[in-house]
Amino acid sequence: MTAARSEASFVQTLPGRYYYEPAIYERELARIFSEMWVCVGRADRLPSGGMYCAVTVGTESVLVIRDRDGSLRAFFNVCRHRGARLCSAASGQLKGSIQCRYHAWTYGLDGRLLGAPNVLDLAGFDRATYGLFPVALEVWEGLIWLNLAPEPASFVAQVHAPILERFGTLEPFQRYHMGDLRSGTSITYEVQANWKLVLENFLECYHCAPMHPEFCALLPGFKSGQIYAGDESASLAEGIEAFSMSGKASRSPLPGLSETEARSYYGIVVSPNVLLNFLPDHLVMHTLFPTSPTTCQVVCDWLFAADEVARPDFHPQDTVEIFDLVNRQDWEVCELTQLGMFSRAYASGGVYVPAEAHIRELADFILSRLA
Amino acid sequence: MTAARSEASFVQTLPGRYYYEPAIYERELARIFSEMWVCVGRADRLPSGGMYCAVTVGTESVLVIRDRDGSLRAFFNVCRHRGARLCSAASGQLKGSIQCRYHAWTYGLDGRLLGAPNVLDLAGFDRATYGLFPVALEVWEGLIWLNLAPEPASFVAQVHAPILERFGTLEPFQRYHMGDLRSGTSITYEVQANWKLVLENFLECYHCAPMHPEFCALLPGFKSGQIYAGDESASLAEGIEAFSMSGKASRSPLPGLSETEARSYYGIVVSPNVLLNFLPDHLVMHTLFPTSPTTCQVVCDWLFAADEVARPDFHPQDTVEIFDLVNRQDWEVCELTQLGMFSRAYASGGVYVPAEAHIRELADFILSRLA
Amino acid sequence: MTAARSEASFVQTLPGRYYYEPAIYERELARIFSEMWVCVGRADRLPSGGMYCAVTVGTESVLVIRDRDGSLRAFFNVCRHRGARLCSAASGQLKGSIQCRYHAWTYGLDGRLLGAPNVLDLAGFDRATYGLFPVALEVWEGLIWLNLAPEPASFVAQVHAPILERFGTLEPFQRYHMGDLRSGTSITYEVQANWKLVLENFLECYHCAPMHPEFCALLPGFKSGQIYAGDESASLAEGIEAFSMSGKASRSPLPGLSETEARSYYGIVVSPNVLLNFLPDHLVMHTLFPTSPTTCQVVCDWLFAADEVARPDFHPQDTVEIFDLVNRQDWEVCELTQLGMFSRAYASGGVYVPAEAHIRELADFILSRLA
Repeated sequence: MTAARSEASFVQTLPGRYYYEPAIYERELARIFSEMWVCVGRADRLPSGGMYCAVTVGTESVLVIRDRDGSLRAFFNVCRHRGARLCSAASGQLKGSIQCRYHAWTYGLDGRLLGAPNVLDLAGFDRATYGLFPVALEVWEGLIWLNLAPEPASFVAQVHAPILERFGTLEPFQRYHMGDLRSGTSITYEVQANWKLVLENFLECYHCAPMHPEFCALLPGFKSGQIYAGDESASLAEGIEAFSMSGKASRSPLPGLSETEARSYYGIVVSPNVLLNFLPDHLVMHTLFPTSPTTCQVVCDWLFAADEVARPDFHPQDTVEIFDLVNRQDWEVCELTQLGMFSRAYASGGVYVPAEAHIRELADFILSRLA
Repeated sequence: MTAARSEASFVQTLPGRYYYEPAIYERELARIFSEMWVCVGRADRLPSGGMYCAVTVGTESVLVIRDRDGSLRAFFNVCRHRGARLCSAASGQLKGSIQCRYHAWTYGLDGRLLGAPNVLDLAGFDRATYGLFPVALEVWEGLIWLNLAPEPASFVAQVHAPILERFGTLEPFQRYHMGDLRSGTSITYEVQANWKLVLENFLECYHCAPMHPEFCALLPGFKSGQIYAGDESASLAEGIEAFSMSGKASRSPLPGLSETEARSYYGIVVSPNVLLNFLPDHLVMHTLFPTSPTTCQVVCDWLFAADEVARPDFHPQDTVEIFDLVNRQDWEVCELTQLGMFSRAYASGGVYVPAEAHIRELADFILSRLA
Repeated sequence: MTAARSEASFVQTLPGRYYYEPAIYERELARIFSEMWVCVGRADRLPSGGMYCAVTVGTESVLVIRDRDGSLRAFFNVCRHRGARLCSAASGQLKGSIQCRYHAWTYGLDGRLLGAPNVLDLAGFDRATYGLFPVALEVWEGLIWLNLAPEPASFVAQVHAPILERFGTLEPFQRYHMGDLRSGTSITYEVQANWKLVLENFLECYHCAPMHPEFCALLPGFKSGQIYAGDESASLAEGIEAFSMSGKASRSPLPGLSETEARSYYGIVVSPNVLLNFLPDHLVMHTLFPTSPTTCQVVCDWLFAADEVARPDFHPQDTVEIFDLVNRQDWEVCELTQLGMFSRAYASGGVYVPAEAHIRELADFILSRLA
């Protein structure tokens, strides 16, 4: 079963075991999800002081807290005394401090130890030693990014790289003012596939013609399967007003876009876990969370101009329906592909055809992180 | 707990860990279920051209396809492009080709690559390289046998061996014309026991008196527990017309049987996974599929003469009921035995009494395959 | 995350991995639950001859049988022939012998092999070789203790040690006549936490003020969190008649207690798996059973004077309710603590404050057993 390996014309995929072996998965959690900046969701989830959410980075529960001065901070969700999880709800409102259920150790929203029964006044007790362990946090374009590493690498270098690689400049990206948009709808999917299969699926449109007929009817450039290979434009079909199930527009394009952008689609991966889909009148953002070697969670947000979301007659259904359909079509084939990963027929992997050859960069990125 | 080990008079079983250790189980899948011919069911399951079923051999999903010329072929159920599972249903009807859901690569019923968007006309692309990976297939007496090995060993040597060992000749076996029979009823059991415990259970009748009183009432020779040890005949009791719950006959004996055979039972194991029970007017066939170190699936088919199954008044219930009862009695004790395998009291195994001593051949067979 | 480690004033806990790693858990089962005496419940569960129960010690199923002469014996629940589990019900009544379902091998209530079809009369067969494998058993103060080791260590040395350490003499303990009490209510809890977290929780009252306000209202000495550190008495609050939800008494104190004892609480751990709570008019006993690295089962019995339980108007609810509440409060924080064990923020463990410092003895005991 290795005959195909000698074909010089096609690029090889990763071997099947990269998609299910626990040891490889654990190294990915360690070297990628614990050493890189990882997006954990949108900052507008925590609009006011004292609000918190508990998010998962790799296998770690992390508290993200909005302080009263508006700043965001993140901490390991672990009491410094005996290790109890501090907040077990996914989100909530704190009254100025975080108190451990077990022995009432109490921390400020900035993580400092404020109270600890019988202990604070002990000779030699230095409460500064027992603050919550912090996690590095950055907010970028409305997204919260965390980094578990003790000495995180440059945030900007990681996050700007894919945009600069695509456009040479941040400008086209910035025209969308992503940070000012608001989530109109959010759907969370549990996908029975390794997280890399979801990324690989996003990175090529060779599957669009067979899998996404509705999508291709709106954006006919995707039918060829070659859209990422050259300069072919991904523009709305003639007679189509907007990227929606009906093809009708329910709102104006985002302000400030160029005439081409106001009728185009493009997608960007911000490694390791954000997929951005730019559309004329909204953005679709996927955030990926590996949950096991063979499963992941995908949170999909539909982002609109803030004043659109605030309108009493805001009805995102027509817009949401089409990408929800595309999502479900994608998860179906990701899950079928996961099943093949275990086979001896895929032990040395498969091939990327020329229209997919760029996906190999993801494989090389993974291998370099795991090395 | 090793005192019994010095008893020369009894034969030792395998140690308990052979019935639960994942590493041993995986070696069994590799050395037995991936290198031997394995029965995956009856060929009449696929009566016409284009029909397929997806079966599991070890952990591999394999497509078995009836071509339009009537021939059967088998392939790994894995697309050669990116590894997606091709057919996810257990069985179905193909329209002349197999198309992968993901990127529409299309294969003929003979496994050849027929279509691959954007790729077939590429310079240097040799489509012959990208046919489906074949799996060796043989049909014998109406049963489909597969072999995952790249260079399978002799089919006849494996399958005829237990019959020749029993009778010295194929003749008695052939008198039943198993290949011409039809399944009248099929029941699938999920057994919470290692597959070898089911085999061992079938291989001895020492348990028949305590476990199978109804069975022994029809075939009193089994009461002694010695039936496999000598020449004792397993004939229907006086006054019993047939092997059925009521003891009454609902049909004639199979044509061509000897007078003795027309009132006898015998059983044969066709290693590694078929148990055959020969009865005067029908056969009962068990096909075993290991599903984990501590579980297996048993498919039980009741086979009758084709013209019997075709009769409008064909009622197999009386016939089926007795062996279904025997099956359930057997799974009960197999499952009790599985529980004991984990105990330190069984770490060095148990014993086969003289009436079971021949089962040791199975243990030796397993050990030789795993060596 | 290791800054706190240099604090000389606090005692370190075990590292987080001791609370979830399978390899450590398996060593605990081997070195603690298979080599020490382990309590499996109360002897009055088997009041008459022929009654048995099947209990689990570590991963072993053990039969405890009351013989007709009133003595208790224990055996591995494994047939000596082919390893089948002998009794699959949790408890039951035997008719003078134990018969294996599979091949009808039959054992006396004393474990001797009484019957084995076709085999007993074989030349050279020594039935004494094939009795059930025994497990060492002791009854102490009404409790059944088993030891899986081939050569068990001294029972008295293990079981009396914590009492002597606490009081210097057995006398105060003996005044409660625990062996003569009867279980009025029993509740079994499945706790999603490593068994050691339940023990540690029992060993300190630093958590009582925040977690157990109802308990502290009855026994105000616990509010300080210092009760185990000094000589502070744990006496019922003024105006409180009994340790019950209402604070009212439903029965007299146990006979023979000192005046102080008749208004006091104290607790003792009889390692490895019994927690005893002494109260004026009843005892509360917890028996711990590890069920996986991250789960355990706790059986809680409320013990009363035998004549109390026999009264037609015996109503233990008021008594039971308070400790059931305390139990549930404790399991909640044990489960929150379990979640923190996996975090890199707890990789080198947490700290015991002075009021908890004695718990370190448990950690040292564990480490010494695993060494």
